[in-house]
Amino acid sequence: MLEHVTCLQAMLPFKKSGFCKPDAGNAMSMIASTPVALTPAPAAGIGTAAPPVSHFTLSNGMDVVLIEDHRAPVVTHMVWYRNGSADDPPMKSGIAHFLEHLMFKGTKNHEKGYYSNLIADLGGQENAFTSNDYTAYFQRVAREHLGTVMAYEADRMVNLVLDDETVNPERDVVLEERRMRTDNDPAAQLQEAVHAALFTQHPYGKPVIGWGHEIESLDRHDAMAYYQRFYTPENAILVVAGDVTRAEVEPLAETHYGAIPARAARPQRLRPQEPPSHAHRLVQLADAKVEQPSHQALYLVPSAMTAKNGEQDALELLSHLLGGGQTSLLYRRLVLEQQIAVAAGAYYMGGAVDDTRFFVYAVPAEGVTLEAVDAAIEAELAVVRRVGVDAADLARAKTRMIADAVYAQDNQATLARWYGAALATGEDIASITEWPQRIAAVTLERIKQAAQLLQRHRAVTGYLMTAEADANHE
Amino acid sequence: MLEHVTCLQAMLPFKKSGFCKPDAGNAMSMIASTPVALTPAPAAGIGTAAPPVSHFTLSNGMDVVLIEDHRAPVVTHMVWYRNGSADDPPMKSGIAHFLEHLMFKGTKNHEKGYYSNLIADLGGQENAFTSNDYTAYFQRVAREHLGTVMAYEADRMVNLVLDDETVNPERDVVLEERRMRTDNDPAAQLQEAVHAALFTQHPYGKPVIGWGHEIESLDRHDAMAYYQRFYTPENAILVVAGDVTRAEVEPLAETHYGAIPARAARPQRLRPQEPPSHAHRLVQLADAKVEQPSHQALYLVPSAMTAKNGEQDALELLSHLLGGGQTSLLYRRLVLEQQIAVAAGAYYMGGAVDDTRFFVYAVPAEGVTLEAVDAAIEAELAVVRRVGVDAADLARAKTRMIADAVYAQDNQATLARWYGAALATGEDIASITEWPQRIAAVTLERIKQAAQLLQRHRAVTGYLMTAEADANHE
Repeated sequence: MLEHVTCLQAMLPFKKSGFCKPDAGNAMSMIASTPVALTPAPAAGIGTAAPPVSHFTLSNGMDVVLIEDHRAPVVTHMVWYRNGSADDPPMKSGIAHFLEHLMFKGTKNHEKGYYSNLIADLGGQENAFTSNDYTAYFQRVAREHLGTVMAYEADRMVNLVLDDETVNPERDVVLEERRMRTDNDPAAQLQEAVHAALFTQHPYGKPVIGWGHEIESLDRHDAMAYYQRFYTPENAILVVAGDVTRAEVEPLAETHYGAIPARAARPQRLRPQEPPSHAHRLVQLADAKVEQPSHQALYLVPSAMTAKNGEQDALELLSHLLGGGQTSLLYRRLVLEQQIAVAAGAYYMGGAVDDTRFFVYAVPAEGVTLEAVDAAIEAELAVVRRVGVDAADLARAKTRMIADAVYAQDNQATLARWYGAALATGEDIASITEWPQRIAAVTLERIKQAAQLLQRHRAVTGYLMTAEADANHE
Repeated sequence: MLEHVTCLQAMLPFKKSGFCKPDAGNAMSMIASTPVALTPAPAAGIGTAAPPVSHFTLSNGMDVVLIEDHRAPVVTHMVWYRNGSADDPPMKSGIAHFLEHLMFKGTKNHEKGYYSNLIADLGGQENAFTSNDYTAYFQRVAREHLGTVMAYEADRMVNLVLDDETVNPERDVVLEERRMRTDNDPAAQLQEAVHAALFTQHPYGKPVIGWGHEIESLDRHDAMAYYQRFYTPENAILVVAGDVTRAEVEPLAETHYGAIPARAARPQRLRPQEPPSHAHRLVQLADAKVEQPSHQALYLVPSAMTAKNGEQDALELLSHLLGGGQTSLLYRRLVLEQQIAVAAGAYYMGGAVDDTRFFVYAVPAEGVTLEAVDAAIEAELAVVRRVGVDAADLARAKTRMIADAVYAQDNQATLARWYGAALATGEDIASITEWPQRIAAVTLERIKQAAQLLQRHRAVTGYLMTAEADANHE
């Protein structure tokens, strides 16, 4: 049973095109080169219902985050590793995701299937996902089984067994995944090409699942070398959310994870960075399978980790103002007023180790060209760059974003993912708890400054086109 | 005195834009990510004037090629290393070129400047260049000084001395080169962006000089590690062309180069390869410094080393048919008949270790848009893909190419470069001597097959635009 988490967020453009299929297994790993789109917007600490969060470190260097939630007698248990597809060694793209698959095989102590059956017998759920910057494994079980799932994760952190009989067929499984979900999907192909164009040097330009010709070369030795390098307590973060106290969790964590000897320093994340961009890039893919053309623009912008002076908060608000729902600027202008698009939105992937993506997207109305939609988007962005946004709009966006984050805290697993993703990309607990105050403090001037980053010479635009559109062009 | 070879070939698009400046030092190294454009068209062995070529290997594994040329009492002496910018380690782009600079510093036996002064005193010339796939050093001296220049190259192959006092200022020299020639030149910036878009994974997408932010990090340790890895006799090729015989050259080579102990196996060239391309990419750069807009299209095609069934010969002929001078298809149609362009051409960079570039370019006539030129080029290519080329045109192209190659043999240095580049990219002597026969054998059908490679979804198109064009677009 190799099950994967379904798509956590549907904030990506082109939901219908196969990027996010909540009903399909392993969707997370399959998002072309798009990282898990965790809203970088947790609001723990605000409001009266804010859960108590504690953070401590085991003697071997493993981080532990505990989020108490006593509403139901269940726990969400996650182990995050600070390595994702962007840490794949050169010519080994896909190894992070491949190893995620292999982590469901046997260990020295237990045969393949033992743990998965155990979790099922306990009435629990388990899953895993790989993203650009991290790989995570989780289980959700009744509170009394927390020790059992800790024993499971601790065992496979050190005792994984890989042989050719296990590894080689699983590689074929991954290759088939790639064929089904990317190679047969024009939208996914475009997504890969757009990311490769935006990130010409940085590994965010590589798909999480890997390039087909490189996956083909991955073997047991690659997987084991990768495992031994990254699957160490120093590189891991334990997140427990649920009906348990620190007095219960700390001794359990010490028993199961603390017993793993410290290995070495945490692996460094050495990644090529992008040179300055001077040229706009338009990526066009036409295919007979495309029924609905669509437009996307990606801008290379700072992430929460690379931003200076709170740029990330301004960018997050800007994405909300531009394209966060039906009151947003792009939706109002393109869909409601000009009626040249049937959908329009924006999204900022702030939670990343390195410089990241700001998306703007639209789906043209019947008979409207992608060029017309592109020009309309550019015109709106030009206005925002020049004069900024409306004060009332900004106030409304802040209220809505903070409220959304408060509502989202209702979900135990969502909270666990917020903290896990933040720590795995290098943020600290304070970056989460102080987020509402930071958002509230963003000024009109800072929004306008952030908009200066959305310039054409920093952007990659993607056109998904019908086959006829291509034929017409030629 | 650090002098570099001037631009060997002017076959690149946009000659006026600063890529090829025969009067400027170090132009070769500066060609964005464009390798030295050696015509892969030597014709040694054909005609009555064909020079005798011999090829042998020293006991330590160093290749030697001798091209006898007794017309004047001079020799061209070259040492080629099978490593260029495409072998730069990750995050160390520019190291091949940087080391080329540093090779003109001192050795254990001689201070900086000693050899350069010596060559000058002998009335000789010396130079060096770095390309994607190789780095080469050469001297041209009177025949009696061949042993002297061999001693020079052999000394710096093993005895290079690098210290911070030498390395750090030279890094600033390289950074200044980059600023002058690339960062201040929109055409060079576009060239970098176009190459990065075509080669999203393969290091041909990186500029030979390196990315600025990576050059900044190069130090003495990087340079020495690179030197020790690649500057070995097994990895080197000696090419001597001139008024000497094998009876003279072989003992000299054994004395100077043969005395260098074999180090290890030749370094492997492990380079990420490109995934299949499904999307067309248009790269647009607008700048106030641009006076003349221009159009280029690059197609990813097999090189002489990756081609099957002689595709490289068909591609070479096709480039000649499409854009080799004023009788070529694109020139006739776009410049003479339609009068929408003032220049048009094509070029195939067949001499490369990995999949390579086929260029098509044009400069629009006054008042003609780049889009119109693009459509016209696409229309011509579509015809060639569908019906092929004219038999008389093909016959004429063959005659002309073979004749050009025969004429080019008149130049001793050109011959030396042909053989050096071929061997450094993995070709053998026969690939050069048999070239005229292979070209003569290319059929109309094979030209048409080669044209199928020039498809839009494999291409990157680059538009160099004036600042006004950009303003209009926004």
